[in-house]
Amino acid sequence: MSLIVTGTIGIDTIETPSGERREDLLGGSGVYFAAAASFYTQARLVAAVGDDFPQEFLDSLNDFEGLDIAGLEVRKGSKTFRWGGKYHEDMDHRDTLFTDLGVLEEAPPPVPEAFKDSSVVFLANSHPMVQLNMLEQFPDAKLSVADTMDLWITIAKPELTNLLSKVDGLVLNFDEAEQFTGHRNPVTAGRHLLELGPRFVVIKKGEHGCILVHKDGICALPAYPTEDVVDPTGAGDTFAGGLMGRLAAAGGHDLGSFGSVREALAHGTVMASFNVESFSLEKLRSISRKDVHARFDEYADMVKIG
Amino acid sequence: MSLIVTGTIGIDTIETPSGERREDLLGGSGVYFAAAASFYTQARLVAAVGDDFPQEFLDSLNDFEGLDIAGLEVRKGSKTFRWGGKYHEDMDHRDTLFTDLGVLEEAPPPVPEAFKDSSVVFLANSHPMVQLNMLEQFPDAKLSVADTMDLWITIAKPELTNLLSKVDGLVLNFDEAEQFTGHRNPVTAGRHLLELGPRFVVIKKGEHGCILVHKDGICALPAYPTEDVVDPTGAGDTFAGGLMGRLAAAGGHDLGSFGSVREALAHGTVMASFNVESFSLEKLRSISRKDVHARFDEYADMVKIG
Repeated sequence: MSLIVTGTIGIDTIETPSGERREDLLGGSGVYFAAAASFYTQARLVAAVGDDFPQEFLDSLNDFEGLDIAGLEVRKGSKTFRWGGKYHEDMDHRDTLFTDLGVLEEAPPPVPEAFKDSSVVFLANSHPMVQLNMLEQFPDAKLSVADTMDLWITIAKPELTNLLSKVDGLVLNFDEAEQFTGHRNPVTAGRHLLELGPRFVVIKKGEHGCILVHKDGICALPAYPTEDVVDPTGAGDTFAGGLMGRLAAAGGHDLGSFGSVREALAHGTVMASFNVESFSLEKLRSISRKDVHARFDEYADMVKIG
Repeated sequence: MSLIVTGTIGIDTIETPSGERREDLLGGSGVYFAAAASFYTQARLVAAVGDDFPQEFLDSLNDFEGLDIAGLEVRKGSKTFRWGGKYHEDMDHRDTLFTDLGVLEEAPPPVPEAFKDSSVVFLANSHPMVQLNMLEQFPDAKLSVADTMDLWITIAKPELTNLLSKVDGLVLNFDEAEQFTGHRNPVTAGRHLLELGPRFVVIKKGEHGCILVHKDGICALPAYPTEDVVDPTGAGDTFAGGLMGRLAAAGGHDLGSFGSVREALAHGTVMASFNVESFSLEKLRSISRKDVHARFDEYADMVKIG
């Protein structure tokens, strides 16, 4: 099934605890998500950039065979979203150094006609009103899932609550689940979020893995245990990309069932594990589907029970 | 195979974030470990208490069919070890309210002759010199594993390092692995610890599960996702008890291999998940092997991949 994602495209500056600083990196939630999802299915990206967006970044995106950037609007006279972040020693937390919203302050990009038949919709992190407007353009979607962040829980909780009544799934961080519900226990937090409408909630715990709270069951997975963490930026987005890409590729009437989401979580975990091994998309650009399958098998062996 | 454990027996006072305070609870690393291990194999406990130790606690221990307390010495004129702890809101950290070492400041208890043929030795947390003296009483042990804690890393690192050159395995917390090695990444920390001698290191991450770094492979497991956390005291000890109990029960020449430890970790996870559902041994006293098997199957289903 075809998968559409709306999210940001950014030009990032990253500082890591080792003191390394990299500027002008291709980033953004939509970019990381779509690149990861493209290993599984056709991933359609809807996002806007300014006319300062480098041609080499467009070339980078085009290098991903399964990634369709027909919905990438280059807006004349606008500036691309720019973000800078500095990671703490633990690599799990970061400070934002700067945010230049640029084109994100303008009207969202239109959805190309050719994308209107998308069956699976992923609403990467943005204002819940923007996510809702996007969702309403796909009344026949078979599966819709949203991501969010602390900012929207703080300043737009009613709109986010409304969005939750209209999507099948929600993906968010451990801290955000607590912030939203007041419950630190992820299973309890997940159950409260289910009461707002979605069929499932995926709670991301970074290096500690994830927990799925689904109307039909609960599941937990560890992260892929790796020593090779260069830059965690985009880990959550590539996790969601692998998850949704796998769900869309599997398709069928089982879409969004407990079994289908549980199975897809492991693919999200694998894609995130590749992503953190480099800055930007460098690692994802260097691997093939064969590498993904090999790591999936290795990961499955690492968490094998009995 | 017979399993012997030396560790503490304590009378605990616990305060939980909900404001509940419970005094005079049966606790201690040896008690929690042996109770959990007794669901899998004969668990022999070597530990000392004072003559203030209540008869009802002896009765409680005797209620565990697989638990042999012939090595429990009641020392006249001595006081039982007492400890008080108060948990933080996150249930993952705690403050020590008081510690009365009592009998722990005296000579360690002797190992009964009938226990000298034990094949599997677990050295629960105590001073590494005490652990080493205990280990030396079992020159023919097939498998020996030690636990430790931050205090010994701070004040007795050379002795602990010496102990590591003589045991097959080490179990310790995430923070302690970092404290010992200077490496926050658990895989990196585990590899450094392997260089000191053991064949495997199990890094416990509490509610986030565990990571096994073995000379022959790496494995990660999530904790059992539960909403029902009443008191985490003894979670690490019951985890180790389930792990070692299962290893001893499986026996064979494969003892301590990557496959055997990986398989046993899931049993440790299950025993810890029961333990946190009550104060002291209340939950473990209320369950049967059938309950353990049922939760094991449920847990295996929760972390199933593919």
